[in-house]
Amino acid sequence: MNIEMIRAAAQRLDGEARCTPLLNSPFIDDLAGRRVWIKPECLQHTGSFKFRGAWAALSALEPSIRAKGVVAFSSGNHAQGVALAAARHNVPSVIIMPADAPHLKIENTRSLGAEVVLYNRASEDREVIGLSLEHERGLTMIKPFDDPQVIAGQGTAGLEIAKQTSSLGVEKGDVLVCCGGGGLTSGIALALEADAPGLCVRPVEPEGFDDVTRSLFSGKIEKNIKTTGNICDAIITPQPGNLTFPVMQRLCGPGLIVDENEALESMAIAFLRLKLVAEPGGAVALAAAIFRKGEIEGNDVVVVISGGNVDPDLFAKSLNTLV
Amino acid sequence: MNIEMIRAAAQRLDGEARCTPLLNSPFIDDLAGRRVWIKPECLQHTGSFKFRGAWAALSALEPSIRAKGVVAFSSGNHAQGVALAAARHNVPSVIIMPADAPHLKIENTRSLGAEVVLYNRASEDREVIGLSLEHERGLTMIKPFDDPQVIAGQGTAGLEIAKQTSSLGVEKGDVLVCCGGGGLTSGIALALEADAPGLCVRPVEPEGFDDVTRSLFSGKIEKNIKTTGNICDAIITPQPGNLTFPVMQRLCGPGLIVDENEALESMAIAFLRLKLVAEPGGAVALAAAIFRKGEIEGNDVVVVISGGNVDPDLFAKSLNTLV
Repeated sequence: MNIEMIRAAAQRLDGEARCTPLLNSPFIDDLAGRRVWIKPECLQHTGSFKFRGAWAALSALEPSIRAKGVVAFSSGNHAQGVALAAARHNVPSVIIMPADAPHLKIENTRSLGAEVVLYNRASEDREVIGLSLEHERGLTMIKPFDDPQVIAGQGTAGLEIAKQTSSLGVEKGDVLVCCGGGGLTSGIALALEADAPGLCVRPVEPEGFDDVTRSLFSGKIEKNIKTTGNICDAIITPQPGNLTFPVMQRLCGPGLIVDENEALESMAIAFLRLKLVAEPGGAVALAAAIFRKGEIEGNDVVVVISGGNVDPDLFAKSLNTLV
Repeated sequence: MNIEMIRAAAQRLDGEARCTPLLNSPFIDDLAGRRVWIKPECLQHTGSFKFRGAWAALSALEPSIRAKGVVAFSSGNHAQGVALAAARHNVPSVIIMPADAPHLKIENTRSLGAEVVLYNRASEDREVIGLSLEHERGLTMIKPFDDPQVIAGQGTAGLEIAKQTSSLGVEKGDVLVCCGGGGLTSGIALALEADAPGLCVRPVEPEGFDDVTRSLFSGKIEKNIKTTGNICDAIITPQPGNLTFPVMQRLCGPGLIVDENEALESMAIAFLRLKLVAEPGGAVALAAAIFRKGEIEGNDVVVVISGGNVDPDLFAKSLNTLV
């Protein structure tokens, strides 16, 4: 993993991924007690940053390998990112999804051109299904975070942050990143190390799923006890990745932890002040800027809103926090 | 009114207004039956395009005049645009708002630095209040649309659309613009006449408030019968402006009309597919692309989402259309 891989990924992503803007609001600055710069990856294709890593990984494959197709496990954002990246490369994709995944996400993934293979969480092993697809059909597995090209792709968001903050004269501060397996967090950290060394990445996690925060604290990979049961579904990964953790350990500041209500309130604030739709897991970094401001230093903070794929019911619930 | 005024406004707006991106979604393309390019002015400062015109008008004032301050009538988006533009110019602003305006909008306008003067719609005449403020305090009135510099400021969105569509290879098609008094519509039309002559602006209005559509059809300024009673509050202006109408008459294609339910459904589609918060009046152009596709020609259509300042209750209501 190095900056050259990220720069190469950025070249492959040019004209394919969106360079998302850097937004702000005086109302959010007031809430956070400092200037807050928002990187809205919910505006990325498929509604999350995952398209960056998926495109980077697919575009790095040797063409004859890629032509056979790709496979991924995911019920959410990675699924849609891989499906769209594969469709635009005109190669087949197979996404292995639990049969009880939300109907809308299954339909979306199919609509983006993927073949969806449903499995029964209780009676079937998705790893076995994935391996058999790899071997029988010659598909290449695209991992959600622990893959150098995926990390490089997510890191392109960091290159953009470095350029955008520099043009604003912001050279010091924390960059709060919603953190699951650490692909986005480590990718951005590597990009900023090279292009904006005064900016320090801080992973943000939901309460009860603070594996990265604890791992950074103890110096070794720690696991979450629970694997489900949080509205921040996009970032409740069981543990940091083997590739992402050493990068985070070397480059990131301490983690920040927010609770579900803080995530919900922050979704409502993004609605009201930024006119953006954030999903719960995509709003935790904004929540940390607002509700953990005592754990942050400096005049400026950058906040990544990592995704916006949220069901209408849950979004409506977040709006109730405004009343 | 000419293109040079728009280019000069763009120079004054550089670094102040946001260059909003041009977004798309394969799901919306499917709904519309053609490629749809979204210009999300809900992401502009204060949540609507109005900041462009306000900044253009304030920055064009002679400094000693500007220093005395500005005044505007508005209960909505123009109020916030003028308040922020004045605050950033470090000059006072007075916004005359009805006492029964939504509490949040009054608070926002105050928070952006404006002095809010409330009046009783039933017993007081806001014009009289405005004139007395102009004379007693030397304030300059910033009109919401029928002012050359305001039109020039809104036109800067058109310069961006021309550049962004050109980089995508889109040279022909309709540009659907949410239309109240016609400031944004005529400004964009003037910009495209110069920089993207293959693009044709089409005003979009809510049913029952189709004054511009009827005026374009009859060739003279027509008024709306009703003045209230539509969720598209931002664009239910009584009649086209004296400056904006001749520009629209010369440059725009026929108007398009959508109903309130179509606006609500389009807000939900923007939520789901673009991760954007659109207000009802800001969503009518998207509604026209989806629900009036038979009245549009060509492979590409540009849709301006003009604002996102919507109450949580009404937004939640729009989400119910997804069920």
